[in-house]
Amino acid sequence: MNIEIIAVGTELLGSRFADTNSVWLTERLEDLGLQPIRRTIVGDQGPGLETSLRLALSSGGLVLVGGGLGPTGDDKTREATAAALNRGLVFREDVMAAIEERFRRFGWPLTEPNRRQAWVVEGAEVLANPLGTAPGQWLEAEGRTIILLPGPPHELKGMFQAQVLPRLARLGRRHLARRLIRTTGLGESAVEARIEGLYPDDPDRILTVLASPGRVDLRIAASSSVSPERAGALADELTSRLKARLGSAVYAESEIELGEVVIGLLRRDGTTLSVAESCTGGLVSHRLTDVPGSSLVFLGGYVAYADAAKVRDLGIAPSLLESRGAVSQEVVEAMASGARLRTGSDWALALSGIAGPGGGTPEKPVGLVHIALAGPAGLIAERHVFSGRREAVKFQAGQRALDLLRRRLSGLD
Amino acid sequence: MNIEIIAVGTELLGSRFADTNSVWLTERLEDLGLQPIRRTIVGDQGPGLETSLRLALSSGGLVLVGGGLGPTGDDKTREATAAALNRGLVFREDVMAAIEERFRRFGWPLTEPNRRQAWVVEGAEVLANPLGTAPGQWLEAEGRTIILLPGPPHELKGMFQAQVLPRLARLGRRHLARRLIRTTGLGESAVEARIEGLYPDDPDRILTVLASPGRVDLRIAASSSVSPERAGALADELTSRLKARLGSAVYAESEIELGEVVIGLLRRDGTTLSVAESCTGGLVSHRLTDVPGSSLVFLGGYVAYADAAKVRDLGIAPSLLESRGAVSQEVVEAMASGARLRTGSDWALALSGIAGPGGGTPEKPVGLVHIALAGPAGLIAERHVFSGRREAVKFQAGQRALDLLRRRLSGLD
Repeated sequence: MNIEIIAVGTELLGSRFADTNSVWLTERLEDLGLQPIRRTIVGDQGPGLETSLRLALSSGGLVLVGGGLGPTGDDKTREATAAALNRGLVFREDVMAAIEERFRRFGWPLTEPNRRQAWVVEGAEVLANPLGTAPGQWLEAEGRTIILLPGPPHELKGMFQAQVLPRLARLGRRHLARRLIRTTGLGESAVEARIEGLYPDDPDRILTVLASPGRVDLRIAASSSVSPERAGALADELTSRLKARLGSAVYAESEIELGEVVIGLLRRDGTTLSVAESCTGGLVSHRLTDVPGSSLVFLGGYVAYADAAKVRDLGIAPSLLESRGAVSQEVVEAMASGARLRTGSDWALALSGIAGPGGGTPEKPVGLVHIALAGPAGLIAERHVFSGRREAVKFQAGQRALDLLRRRLSGLD
Repeated sequence: MNIEIIAVGTELLGSRFADTNSVWLTERLEDLGLQPIRRTIVGDQGPGLETSLRLALSSGGLVLVGGGLGPTGDDKTREATAAALNRGLVFREDVMAAIEERFRRFGWPLTEPNRRQAWVVEGAEVLANPLGTAPGQWLEAEGRTIILLPGPPHELKGMFQAQVLPRLARLGRRHLARRLIRTTGLGESAVEARIEGLYPDDPDRILTVLASPGRVDLRIAASSSVSPERAGALADELTSRLKARLGSAVYAESEIELGEVVIGLLRRDGTTLSVAESCTGGLVSHRLTDVPGSSLVFLGGYVAYADAAKVRDLGIAPSLLESRGAVSQEVVEAMASGARLRTGSDWALALSGIAGPGGGTPEKPVGLVHIALAGPAGLIAERHVFSGRREAVKFQAGQRALDLLRRRLSGLD
């Protein structure tokens, strides 16, 4: 079933007010295994709502509209919906009576504009609004359903929970299963090349690839009208095939960061880690210590930003810094060995590079990062050139260093 | 002129990812005195994008489309736009050459999917993408304009600022001026109390207060149909009155972070800094080294997470750790003094606390952080209890430490 959400309100088209109602409605739909195919924000004035409603009706299914049911002249959702359905508006005495009762109860003076709220689209089923004056409306037209909800969030939520959700849950419930594959070390196009031919062509499964510097996520959504187990099996089947193609680039199957994976592996093994950072400036230590319980395995970090710090804290020979430069394989290996020796950790990661924007040369360009891992069996070193701004270079370098350790601890490569 | 914004991405239809690009584009339009009449989010798959494009074209004007230009098979913006315009796609050798050049420069292997990004809609003017591989496209059709922009926010923003904004600027009608006041050290309600009575009641000025842990931003927008100078004067008048109320809590009037302010003050003075971190785990060093040029004044950092690291690297007496505990004023003062002595820096910041979720006691609860600053004239220490999750405690503690140094370097308090 195609579901669309339309938020009505000129203020939502500006940058200051977020359309929180639509996000909340999306979450409730997700709870039912449903996802909208489109979300739209339109203003109160102009033809935007009517044209959006006509488009939504043309793709069938269910349309949830929030807002524009107030008493003032700029609230046009009733009129636009009637126009989109080629219907009229009717005055409902029972709705008016409820409005009058509410005003009497609070001792408010009833004004002429409030009478506007007693008009409903021809054929509408009225949804009571215990928290406000604007009633909701449930409309059926040639197999499509339009539900009009008031804009104030607590009114919209109350009405949806009490009167809409129970009926949607019955109305063609599909079961949804989601999976996540989180990879690092491959760019978006490399991931794409590996998974070629695995994009699902059945309508029940969706694969989305989401790339950010240092990470590519694959999200799998499968749905079934039969059972949750059937949806799960569809999702698992695709997930397995994707994982087989992606191999050791997969580092997680849930919303966790690489730091958490590494801390988990260290805790599993009962081994410890220290970190010596130059260009990443503390980011790797920060990411590791974001993980609760990291203090059990993370012995400490050195942000050896200046050459003097590399000499003093990590025991790098000044002659080595002189001859090779701080950004070199030799120095980063010595940094890793120095941190391991000094802290007594089982493993030590070290990074040195040029985060930019300044400091690059033709031989050592901005983005160049040397990474080393010292461990019980010796040293591994890598050289990378990362693209992007300073923050992106730092993040990708940190991600790669953590991945180097993950692979080692997992016995990969 | 009718302006529409369409964000493309199935992930944006779920509840987990906010469509930040469209909000940013809206702000840029507002700077020109323009506002979109509709904002739409559609998925990568299905007919949603094509039908939304057709609707936008039918209402005329300008359509900004963000996303769906990646190399993968689920990126369909090129195809959908061509279909909506009843045009074909053409392979552009010059675009392919630029992509190849980019891959060569970074030493990445070019894969078959990357060739997809060299296809553009017939008649498109190509917008170069210096920050990524997907070029943008500028399309004109019977008086309407469609602009395709890449989805990654830094690519979209860079391309829009450099290549789209100058051409749209001539369309603006109202002059808009924005100001930003960035504060730290006061909670949202303390800020509200200070600025009481200053919320503008004229329709030409808007004040928005945006709070996050460790920071409260005040955004001022003023508009005028007369001149940019008039809008600027309106904005400045309100900004001055707000700043007078907020006093030393104001640390910036642009989109910069506290780390950049501190690095700027140190560079102004020609003085240097080192950092010793326990509970923040490298975050303070990381934030300082996010600032280009920080290597001139930041001598290095110690992530002294374990007690052994505090003894070894910062010279803390084991007896002090034993008698007072690692989270104490005495130990954090010794950490700051130790870092200053060891690195020879003019200033040294130290932090020790309990980030949680575990490790709290009735006397030393989760969120307790001791902060010390060592400088030429001696030591200052503070004790705070921050609320929130582990990441929020780390951030607020780091923010407070940087602000302690900012105030000292600025001669405040």
